[in-house]
Amino acid sequence: MDLNHIINHIRVKKSCLCVGLDPDLNRIPDHLLDGDDPVFEFNKSIIDATSDLCVAYKPNLAFYEKLGPAGLVSLEKTIRYISDDHFIIADAKRSDIFNSAKMYADTFYNYFNCDAVTLSPYMGFDAVKPFLKKGKWAILLIATSNPSASSIQNIITQSGSPLYLDILDNAAAWSNKENMMFVVGATRTKEMRKIRAKAPENFFLIPGIGAQGGDLAAVFDAGFSKNCGLLINVSRSIIYAGEGLGKNFKDHVHQACLSMQQNMESLLKSRNFVV
Amino acid sequence: MDLNHIINHIRVKKSCLCVGLDPDLNRIPDHLLDGDDPVFEFNKSIIDATSDLCVAYKPNLAFYEKLGPAGLVSLEKTIRYISDDHFIIADAKRSDIFNSAKMYADTFYNYFNCDAVTLSPYMGFDAVKPFLKKGKWAILLIATSNPSASSIQNIITQSGSPLYLDILDNAAAWSNKENMMFVVGATRTKEMRKIRAKAPENFFLIPGIGAQGGDLAAVFDAGFSKNCGLLINVSRSIIYAGEGLGKNFKDHVHQACLSMQQNMESLLKSRNFVV
Repeated sequence: MDLNHIINHIRVKKSCLCVGLDPDLNRIPDHLLDGDDPVFEFNKSIIDATSDLCVAYKPNLAFYEKLGPAGLVSLEKTIRYISDDHFIIADAKRSDIFNSAKMYADTFYNYFNCDAVTLSPYMGFDAVKPFLKKGKWAILLIATSNPSASSIQNIITQSGSPLYLDILDNAAAWSNKENMMFVVGATRTKEMRKIRAKAPENFFLIPGIGAQGGDLAAVFDAGFSKNCGLLINVSRSIIYAGEGLGKNFKDHVHQACLSMQQNMESLLKSRNFVV
Repeated sequence: MDLNHIINHIRVKKSCLCVGLDPDLNRIPDHLLDGDDPVFEFNKSIIDATSDLCVAYKPNLAFYEKLGPAGLVSLEKTIRYISDDHFIIADAKRSDIFNSAKMYADTFYNYFNCDAVTLSPYMGFDAVKPFLKKGKWAILLIATSNPSASSIQNIITQSGSPLYLDILDNAAAWSNKENMMFVVGATRTKEMRKIRAKAPENFFLIPGIGAQGGDLAAVFDAGFSKNCGLLINVSRSIIYAGEGLGKNFKDHVHQACLSMQQNMESLLKSRNFVV
């Protein structure tokens, strides 16, 4: 999916929401656990309840690999079930030598038919290069949302700037706004402003809203760009909104998702990005 | 597998060789391609031809995930086929927030029954913590063997030292010699000396010998410690030693592996680590 499509979908849906498809068998409604493929059935319900309100889905590979080969079957079925007008991000955080990185790119782009893959920057350009294809996206970890992230990412370098900005400078030399996005945690708004200043046109994938404590309005303040530039991921607080509530769980998921979309619509309107 | 077992196996086998199980369908002998599971059959042959000469096996997940669910089945069967006295490293280079990292640790340690997992350090301690278990090992990328690695890893920090040493200092605070190893490329002997000076007792996992151009004697010079401290990985130049040579490929694999083990034995003897 190319940049214009992503921007257009945000305008049409009045939403920059990415729903994280992180199915945990301990939290899936009981009535789905007896089926052949509870993970797929759960995801299918989540997609049905959210597809009109979000522009992207982000399955985290950790949740599928945990189930072994069957988990990858569930992932395949899930991705096939998602419509072509949603942007699909494999949240895999991969990083390997060129030869292996090519295989991962082939896996996620061709086998699983994803649009984008999250990547760790520590191995440099040749671990990222195979992911930079026309209409496909490398999404590089820059400032992540986890508590210990800044212990590494904010190390001050010789240039006087924090490491994450040096990595951003490196990445700018490898890529462009049409094939590279950056992961910037919702809890890292201070860093987000600096990253936006250096990368005015790249999209950011933003985890950390909801269960991890990030604030939506603060994210818009720090990261919104003329093309919106934000894909804001919410996982647990949407997909488990109906936890323990039985067969009606989909209604609660839809409601949580609608509420998030409405908040986004209001913020997008206040910036005259949608009318 | 605990530290003493690893050291003991190196003494008994007179080898610190780790064989990389990176099965590529384009390079597997033709006569295996007609079977139900060519990847497993190939790995089985490689294991048969090498198990008396090596102390560890390292499947790289990229080669298995490329084949979708069937690839993970081949991986499961491969790991079951490896004897308990070999150290098994999932070369997965994972890195994720704590909640997801716990899942990856569960996947590789419990589902796949590996002893160790390679990890990327960019997200800091909470992405590593779930992998630090008794008898299990986090193997952190410090100085990797790929061409562009130093563009990030050798960024000089405010302290005047390169980033990889700052990360090593961080990691030393999280872990100990019984649960943490470091990835140091065979092509990075200059860095290896500095890492060994700061981490005298940790094992290093060393890729980059063979196809990637590293030199065995130089690695011993730079990285050998009183407990050997080296697990030296060789993938392509052993497992594809019989490429294009038909049904006798196993003999060529064995010969390539024996030659590598003999070189290691000679270097281990010259340091009085084995007699």
